Amino acid sequence: MSDTNPGSELAARAEALDAADPLGKLRDRFTLPEGVVYLDGNSLGALPAGVAARLAEVVTEQWGTRLIRSWTEGEANWWNAPERIGDRIAPLVGAAAGQVVVGDSTSVNLFKALVGAARLAAPGRTELLVDAATFPTDGYIAESAARMTGLRVVPVDPAAAAGAMGPDTAVVLLNHADYRTGRLHDLPALTAAAHAAGALVVWDLCHTAGALPVGLDAHAVDLAVGCTYKYLNGGPGAPAYLYVAARHQAAFDSPLPGWNGHADPFAMTPSYEAAQGVARARVGTPDILSMLALEAALDAWDGVAVDDVRAKSLALTDFFLDCVAAYVPAGKVELVTPTGHDQRASQVSLRTENADEVMRELISRGVIGDFRAPDVLRFGFTPLYVGFADAERAARALGHIFG
Amino acid sequence: MSDTNPGSELAARAEALDAADPLGKLRDRFTLPEGVVYLDGNSLGALPAGVAARLAEVVTEQWGTRLIRSWTEGEANWWNAPERIGDRIAPLVGAAAGQVVVGDSTSVNLFKALVGAARLAAPGRTELLVDAATFPTDGYIAESAARMTGLRVVPVDPAAAAGAMGPDTAVVLLNHADYRTGRLHDLPALTAAAHAAGALVVWDLCHTAGALPVGLDAHAVDLAVGCTYKYLNGGPGAPAYLYVAARHQAAFDSPLPGWNGHADPFAMTPSYEAAQGVARARVGTPDILSMLALEAALDAWDGVAVDDVRAKSLALTDFFLDCVAAYVPAGKVELVTPTGHDQRASQVSLRTENADEVMRELISRGVIGDFRAPDVLRFGFTPLYVGFADAERAARALGHIFG
Repeated sequence: MSDTNPGSELAARAEALDAADPLGKLRDRFTLPEGVVYLDGNSLGALPAGVAARLAEVVTEQWGTRLIRSWTEGEANWWNAPERIGDRIAPLVGAAAGQVVVGDSTSVNLFKALVGAARLAAPGRTELLVDAATFPTDGYIAESAARMTGLRVVPVDPAAAAGAMGPDTAVVLLNHADYRTGRLHDLPALTAAAHAAGALVVWDLCHTAGALPVGLDAHAVDLAVGCTYKYLNGGPGAPAYLYVAARHQAAFDSPLPGWNGHADPFAMTPSYEAAQGVARARVGTPDILSMLALEAALDAWDGVAVDDVRAKSLALTDFFLDCVAAYVPAGKVELVTPTGHDQRASQVSLRTENADEVMRELISRGVIGDFRAPDVLRFGFTPLYVGFADAERAARALGHIFG
Repeated sequence: MSDTNPGSELAARAEALDAADPLGKLRDRFTLPEGVVYLDGNSLGALPAGVAARLAEVVTEQWGTRLIRSWTEGEANWWNAPERIGDRIAPLVGAAAGQVVVGDSTSVNLFKALVGAARLAAPGRTELLVDAATFPTDGYIAESAARMTGLRVVPVDPAAAAGAMGPDTAVVLLNHADYRTGRLHDLPALTAAAHAAGALVVWDLCHTAGALPVGLDAHAVDLAVGCTYKYLNGGPGAPAYLYVAARHQAAFDSPLPGWNGHADPFAMTPSYEAAQGVARARVGTPDILSMLALEAALDAWDGVAVDDVRAKSLALTDFFLDCVAAYVPAGKVELVTPTGHDQRASQVSLRTENADEVMRELISRGVIGDFRAPDVLRFGFTPLYVGFADAERAARALGHIFG
């Protein structure tokens, strides 16, 4: 910490920023424990206020009392939940209705997306380009999808991805943000580059959806997947989603053609005929309790514009970086996240020695971020419930640990 | 209905049977609506009494208050839930611990099981034998697994399956019970026949697990899948499970190698190394709310022996058939379910004209079964919460409709 006391000035700035924050009142839509600064919403989003009551009603009334009838009756209408909730997520990722379906895990959806993309790709193309710094499950699933469709995985640094795309490229799999560094990749440019090379592109939105505008339709993305338990606050392991652009749906050929994706599921015919639309990406019976918890969680987005969320996210991370610079002695942490707004998602990653121990100490002081091996402290900023005073307090606690 | 009044005699028999039923008190472990006879537990099991409170605690405390820490800390320990709950299901299907993992849907698990089995099968074998009367999703997924592993699907009537197995048979997929007719297939004999032919066998236990002994280990089954929302009462769309016999685990090669199945998932290494044991069948982040609801639901099995459940199930369906014979005018319904105990699962299916309309009428009279196109009334008997008086009342209502 420097000799002058920056604390009172930064605390005053935080107070002013919070007072002027048009999204500040949204924090009331969440239940957060007293005294905790929660900067791990990029791993598990906080609990939206309406979820507990909705889930109690689902269990007691819809399941306990209406029983099997809730599959098709009334407001419950469990059967339609995957598409209905998909249409709630769609505007948050810049998709028109009818292109997003909820269910399964991100990994399972990625398998559907990659195999589906391989089958949509022009014949004769042999390569599946994969973000080499991707969240690991993407790489593992890509290997399996490649093995089962005859493609070859080619790992690429996203910064060099456009140059690696060529006439052999069938499909490109990229993460919208690097989960370790928080670097945001250029979705519009990389999507255009893939298309220019004649390839399809699959985007993983786990670390951006709900934190910044994605623009799936505007940028003509082919397929995308994402989880709902980070910035969408759907709960631990909440169902993931799959986006299949409308223009690809008629030819989308899922490797997991379960009965829920059938054109007439209750006819129970022995041969498979895919449903029209994105419903063909459904597989088995949807996990209703988790899915309806997610539906309730999405109420936290009522009236919220993603552009406003993005503006606050950048202001929050800018301010956090100012606070870190002021509170943490020089040389103790190294900023891993890009400083340019166009390259920053909604997290700040700091490299430091003994990062695991530092994070444990931070958590014991009520500041919850997370640790990613071997040496990264991650701080996620969820604009719906994180404020500027939280950012200031987190940086101050970090400074004390090194002080 | 016959001229004599069988009603009082059958009602008296029901009362005596209920009074002598050692499982009768288990009904208190479930929350059932007043005045309803629920014979659709083979589609969606009733709500166990402890689920609502447990789920409220999971949402409010584990998620809302402990947040990300619940993944690894204390009683919650979300990370271990798939194996922990698998070990709760294992004894219900005759499996020693460490062979059952919970997560994903039945369809997704079936894909893992079938592709995994194809990769375990002896080289050069070309056929995937599939129960031709199977629940449709099994057939659809089998076609996909065959397409992606180079096998050819050969549909077989389960009664003729043993004769169809030969030197070309790689894998056999069978349902333990026919979902339409309630016919129980001979798992020990068919498993032995598959092994005699040098093939592996995958069993679908959706319609038997929790209703009768399965004996996976005793009969040396290779792989099995099942849902948990029927006789296991896990809730709508509750996570399914996959059994991989211990002897196959080291070579089990999943087509969905998500990061949860990695030997060291938090090392986040770019290359996949499968975990030891059945954990390698895990894929993505487990659906915690649904999964912990299932865990609470399994408390209903505390101290319950599956053999006792089977004895009551047969007594219930025998008695229901007596009541149907007494109450329903001759020629109005045709019994589809086998009368032999060794061929009957835990449901009774009756074929009738206008079955859809008859079932709607039954439901309006408080007797909930279900309809399967084109002409089948299904009545599922869940011995944990269905009694003999329920069976008598259901048959009486059916008789009134035709009376």
